[in-house]
Amino acid sequence: MLEKTTRINYLLDFYQALLTPKQRSYMEMYYLEDYSLGEISEEANVSRQAVYDNIKRTEAMLESYEEKLHLYEKFMERLKIIQKLDERVTAIGDESLINYMNQLKELD
Amino acid sequence: MLEKTTRINYLLDFYQALLTPKQRSYMEMYYLEDYSLGEISEEANVSRQAVYDNIKRTEAMLESYEEKLHLYEKFMERLKIIQKLDERVTAIGDESLINYMNQLKELD
Repeated sequence: MLEKTTRINYLLDFYQALLTPKQRSYMEMYYLEDYSLGEISEEANVSRQAVYDNIKRTEAMLESYEEKLHLYEKFMERLKIIQKLDERVTAIGDESLINYMNQLKELD
Repeated sequence: MLEKTTRINYLLDFYQALLTPKQRSYMEMYYLEDYSLGEISEEANVSRQAVYDNIKRTEAMLESYEEKLHLYEKFMERLKIIQKLDERVTAIGDESLINYMNQLKELD
């Protein structure tokens, strides 16, 4: 369950720009601010079932974007290599390399 | 004109998975295989105007995805840093670093 939440949070990071304002708002309340379905339904003045359906549909959309674009998967692959690079750069202690590595880490 | 074509080619690289099979097919013929609108319209058995409209709409979709996700922009930023890193790594000649850099370059 926790793992699923973490994954959805990452997918939200990568794909939230592709969601509608309503989808984004429900997902933020549910996954980032930890509102319950009941609290969101009160806030949005719609039924609990409508909120639930919207969130489930949005989760499926996020997974479908990931299936097509693989942004989260590629991010994790890049992260692993960057961590190994970073350890070696720190061991070598070259200032230019450290500087470039910091620039690279700021990008993602 | 050439610059625009290059940009569309890059956007296609990043976002083609989000297009419909028809959109992808027209874009591939027009941008990758250099078919004319007339040739595509014959191939697809639709009017030249229909092909033109589809391609223009698809170009606008690609730009809209880029506006939201910035994959091409981020790729270019990362590329610049990776090139500088790579030069310095080559100058230093450390085998582990060279190995990690190769892994990183293979990802994009």
